[in-house]
Order: sequence, then C-alpha cells, then structure tokens
Amino acid sequence: MSGPKIEFWYEFASSYSYLSVMRIEALARDAGVAVEWKPFLLGPVFLAMGWNDSPFNIYPPKGRYMWRDLARLADKYALPFRLPSCFPRNGLLAARVALQGVVPGWVAEFSRRVMLANFAEDRDIGDAEVVGAILADLGLPAGELLAAAVTDDNKLALRRQTERASELGMFGAPSFRAGDELFWGNDRLEDALAWARRAAG
Amino acid sequence: MSGPKIEFWYEFASSYSYLSVMRIEALARDAGVAVEWKPFLLGPVFLAMGWNDSPFNIYPPKGRYMWRDLARLADKYALPFRLPSCFPRNGLLAARVALQGVVPGWVAEFSRRVMLANFAEDRDIGDAEVVGAILADLGLPAGELLAAAVTDDNKLALRRQTERASELGMFGAPSFRAGDELFWGNDRLEDALAWARRAAG
Repeated sequence: MSGPKIEFWYEFASSYSYLSVMRIEALARDAGVAVEWKPFLLGPVFLAMGWNDSPFNIYPPKGRYMWRDLARLADKYALPFRLPSCFPRNGLLAARVALQGVVPGWVAEFSRRVMLANFAEDRDIGDAEVVGAILADLGLPAGELLAAAVTDDNKLALRRQTERASELGMFGAPSFRAGDELFWGNDRLEDALAWARRAAG
Repeated sequence: MSGPKIEFWYEFASSYSYLSVMRIEALARDAGVAVEWKPFLLGPVFLAMGWNDSPFNIYPPKGRYMWRDLARLADKYALPFRLPSCFPRNGLLAARVALQGVVPGWVAEFSRRVMLANFAEDRDIGDAEVVGAILADLGLPAGELLAAAVTDDNKLALRRQTERASELGMFGAPSFRAGDELFWGNDRLEDALAWARRAAG
C-alpha cells in the first residue's frame, strides 16, 4: 500500500522555487502527502528552449514584474525577502550537495537554508564556503559532503536528474508531479497536492 | 468618493484570458470591486519581446503543458473547454467590437460569448460572421457595430490601448491593474481584487 506522494522539482537559482521550498513541507504534511525532493538544473533545460540566461533577464518586462510579484508573494506567505544583488546565482554546487541529502533526509532543511541565503540574505550560494557554513550549521560534516558533491558519480546523478526533467516535459521550476500529471509554478503547489490525494483515493 | 476598482486587460486569442473573462464579473461583484474592461492585442506586445507567434507555439513544452493546465483549470472552475483546432485565433475584430461595448456596458457579456466561441465551441472568432452572430444573439445591431469597428477612430483607439499596455509594463494576458500595481495571469485575479479593496481602504 502506498500513500499519496508528489515529486518536487526545484532549482536553487530560481526565484519562484524559493517560495515552494519554504512552503511545501508544511502544506504536504497537512495534506498527508509525501514529498520526493528533486533538485535539478534549469540551465540545460533553458538552453534546450534557446535561452542562455534566465528568461527574467532576457525579457526585461517579465523580470521587472517577477521581482515585484515575488516581493508581494513573500509578504503574503510571511517569508523574508531581499532583492539579490546577483541573479541568477549558480545553483550547481548546492544542487549537488542537496542530492546527497535525499536519502538521509536533511535535503528539506538544507534546501530552505540555501534558499534563504540566496533570496533573503543576499549571500552567494555558488560559493563553497557559504554552502559549507550551511552544512556545518546543520551539524553535518561539511568537508566530507562538499568533497562527495564533486565526485563523478554524484555529478552524473545530477546530470541524469536534469535530463529526466526535460524528458518529463518540464521547462521551468518549480515543477510538481503527481503520478503522470505535471504542474508548473509555485501557484500550482496546492493543486498538485490535491491531485495526489485524489489519485491515491 | 470612489470605490475599489481594477482594470482588466485581456486578449480574445489568449487561453488564460478565457478563464478570467469567465470568472471576473462574479468575483469582482462579491468583492465589491468595479471592473474596467480593457481589450487589447498581444501580437504587438509579443513582437516587442521578439516573438512573432504565441510563446506556446514557439516553445512546444510550454504549449503542451498549457493545454493540459487549461483543461484542468476549466474543470476546476466548472467551465466548458474544447481544444481549439487553430491557435492562436485572430482576436483583432472581436477586440475592435468589444471596445465599443465598454461605455454602453455590453462588453462583459459579449466578451464571454466570444471566449466561449473560441475555447469551448471551436469557432473562428476572426470571422465577421461569427462575431456578427454573437452580437445579434445579444440583441445588438450587428451590421452597424461591425462597420463602426473598422472606422479609423476605432482602429486607432485599439492601437493606443495596446501601446498603453506595453507602456504599463505588460507582457502577457490576462493582466490586472489595481492602482499602479500590476498583476499578471489568471492565477492573480483574486490577489488583484484583494489589493484593490485594501488600497481603497
């Protein structure tokens, strides 16, 4: 017997992923839905669409709107927000580290700390010192995990997860999957959870 | 003294505009917010972003997702939906006609009929016969209104409204304005209404 569950696909550089990373655990618990955390990289996914940068940078009106929308939504959800001095930041190292936290279960708390560093504290999450400090704060062996993050096996695992995102039809983050059903955007988090519950009967 | 109000910017060819055209009047009435209907054209707005077609056609994964998302949302809102055999349809004539319905007040009902024709009945809303039949159904003088739609003054009025959309920072539809605050997408309709209420005290 398996209960309702959703896959949560997110990227540490993604502004709307920030909102979902902060919101998903409490909402999923209330809904009785298990969450599989799936960090991946938007860069290759965007490249396949012909974008070599965030669409929020390529299309300035979209970017201006996004930052205002994000500030309003952070306010609505009572989340801290500070405009990052650099966007998008490089989420590669954080994603490689996060992948190692899925089985032992610290991926959720690690992901929240990294997102807060990026979107509330204006820290460079692409810097190994910043990521290491977050791991140490969580009582995890920072040096060991940073070294394990850049092994060939772990690099390949993240590359495969990113390829899988494109294969599953994803084109942005955050995305959610409930069974074969794809939901895109922080706005669809509640709908994805409801779908997973209904699908599980 | 003026009560709360929002501007509702929409395009007849736009799939997510369909959802908002069908939903806005009841929601705004319940919220005590007046609605100013602002039909405009996405074509010139998209061209300014470098797109010569709907982004849902330019980026196939976005398009595939959008149609599934739209079907799910129509279901959620209990709205009829049939996949159009042509997308995007030409919304120019309907927008020109709609503009004439703003002052006399038939713009809302006319807009709902045109949207249903496009997204629930798979009819060609670019065809003057289809638009004329909708006007006649509403008891309006179809021939007279179709002729007035293509006068230079009316064409210019729609062109100016479309230019104004870009000036106001819009890059898609539906969009909503509450005071100087811009909201984009059917997902933000409720937030825009709440903002208008708060802003009006």
